[in-house]
Amino acid sequence: MSPDVRKTILSGMRPTGPLHLGHIAGALRNWIKLQDVYRCYYSIASWHALSSEYMNSKVIKSNEFEVAVDWLSAGLDPEKCVIFRQSEVKEHAELHLILSMVVPLPWLERVPTFKEMQQEIRDKDLNTYGFLGYPVLQASDIIMYKADAVPVGEDQAAHIELTREIVRRFNRTFGEIFPEPQTILTEIPRLAGTDGRKMSKSLGNAIYIKDPPEVIREKILPMKTDTRRMRRTDPGEPNDCPVFTLHRAFVPQARRDEIAHGCRTAGIGCRECKAVVIDALIEALAPYRERRARFEREPKLVWDILEDGNTKAREAARKTMDEVRAALGF
Amino acid sequence: MSPDVRKTILSGMRPTGPLHLGHIAGALRNWIKLQDVYRCYYSIASWHALSSEYMNSKVIKSNEFEVAVDWLSAGLDPEKCVIFRQSEVKEHAELHLILSMVVPLPWLERVPTFKEMQQEIRDKDLNTYGFLGYPVLQASDIIMYKADAVPVGEDQAAHIELTREIVRRFNRTFGEIFPEPQTILTEIPRLAGTDGRKMSKSLGNAIYIKDPPEVIREKILPMKTDTRRMRRTDPGEPNDCPVFTLHRAFVPQARRDEIAHGCRTAGIGCRECKAVVIDALIEALAPYRERRARFEREPKLVWDILEDGNTKAREAARKTMDEVRAALGF
Repeated sequence: MSPDVRKTILSGMRPTGPLHLGHIAGALRNWIKLQDVYRCYYSIASWHALSSEYMNSKVIKSNEFEVAVDWLSAGLDPEKCVIFRQSEVKEHAELHLILSMVVPLPWLERVPTFKEMQQEIRDKDLNTYGFLGYPVLQASDIIMYKADAVPVGEDQAAHIELTREIVRRFNRTFGEIFPEPQTILTEIPRLAGTDGRKMSKSLGNAIYIKDPPEVIREKILPMKTDTRRMRRTDPGEPNDCPVFTLHRAFVPQARRDEIAHGCRTAGIGCRECKAVVIDALIEALAPYRERRARFEREPKLVWDILEDGNTKAREAARKTMDEVRAALGF
Repeated sequence: MSPDVRKTILSGMRPTGPLHLGHIAGALRNWIKLQDVYRCYYSIASWHALSSEYMNSKVIKSNEFEVAVDWLSAGLDPEKCVIFRQSEVKEHAELHLILSMVVPLPWLERVPTFKEMQQEIRDKDLNTYGFLGYPVLQASDIIMYKADAVPVGEDQAAHIELTREIVRRFNRTFGEIFPEPQTILTEIPRLAGTDGRKMSKSLGNAIYIKDPPEVIREKILPMKTDTRRMRRTDPGEPNDCPVFTLHRAFVPQARRDEIAHGCRTAGIGCRECKAVVIDALIEALAPYRERRARFEREPKLVWDILEDGNTKAREAARKTMDEVRAALGF
């Protein structure tokens, strides 16, 4: 067997509910490509979910299942990548604890998302020790697999920078064990939800990966469009239209340009424009639905895939932790 | 086999160096008694040591060995109690992570020892995430074994109160799993070190458990006594004499009263008084020395005892973590 010379990537999602079109456009499409080129670890971040959902922890496990089904439906292939549940790889907790000893408090206090999320999410008490340590847990996930790179959107880039700082500090303190993970900056297209605001599960405006065709249709048809188009004959501006954010992510360029032209010249109406994106979405999601059907029929298959992924992740994690403990002299 | 109806106790020490007379008088004597009555878990707190010694982690393991030898010399009996290395029971790291999600930051920020130790220990950077979380790790150690009680000195009582607060919050959030550990308040006699200040490893004024008779003598003979006794004929006050703090801990009451009377009446000189405590110490430590000789000859025996303790602790910890994960729905 020739040695595995692929570089390693880690990414993950918090299992807080079903995934939506934003996850496809902003992450999953990219992940599918990456699994052909890199050694990919995709983590269902159970403990990260706990940091905000601790009042409702009982739903986390079923959300993990849901995320796994969404991922598999989207085309993540367990033959090509490792899909695992963070909480089944206890080594993360151990590395998190060890890292915590060398991470200065101010590094965490100045993470912009810490204060921002506390202010945004007012219905939950996020002023906890664990929530402050979110980036430490994230760092332990990433470096556990000695990830060379992490695909993230701009908003997460600061976290990866912090991971690099933590790596440098660990390596200086205990010995050179971890590579500094690079950022693969992923463009995260802004997708509007059904109410025109950013698509988000918590806003209740999302179109979910698992939505059947009729639900997709029902969600898009009543969407507001560019306010200039009061009448069918008023020309509009696609760049100001929430629906067109969906075109950008799901309608091929040539067809999209036609639609944009039709909108600007009032050559087509909003109803025709919506029909195009609805058809495109239904078509794009058809293979998802097909794959999903099988996993929903055979939930055991999903748990087996996860169990297999947990085992592979654990194996890599144990190797890393042996090195870490040796470096510490434990 | 009749069920084990003993109550459970957990206590521990940070492996930061050899133990001294203060540890005997303030903890070990008590632990020896407790092991006959309670199901005792005694933890060598590797990760707690890391929180302040991370710049010098390579010495922690040999300190763990040293602490184990000191404990065994003092009479902790692996047939009666469980002696284990914290870092070998990974479940602590997992429970620590889970607890971290429900512990409000202000609870930790207001722990008096946090600011105090930062101010006291100026040569180390203790402004880390892990050092702030010290009481969370401590709580996870205690409740892992569902300890009914923790023997501590007054200065640690606030930490146990915090553990109880954490237990209440965990139980309310996830389900009633943990008992609230009670405090067994232990009188920690103030022992003077060779320079008259409080005996402490970091002050370099300690008389160690492992000190041979001649070293004990050499350390005590030059000690300053009550300043009133300039001359042999000046009467003194034992309550103002650093050496007499050692009498209180190691000389039997009747003999001690004689000495005190002799001091107050100038009936005896400081040299005679010191001879008494030196003899008492050498005699008290004789069984320690005897036991120690065997463990120093056979270090493997010590590691085997620890390995056996790790296994027992792990077994109990796994049972607890199964309950915790079920309560979380994981």
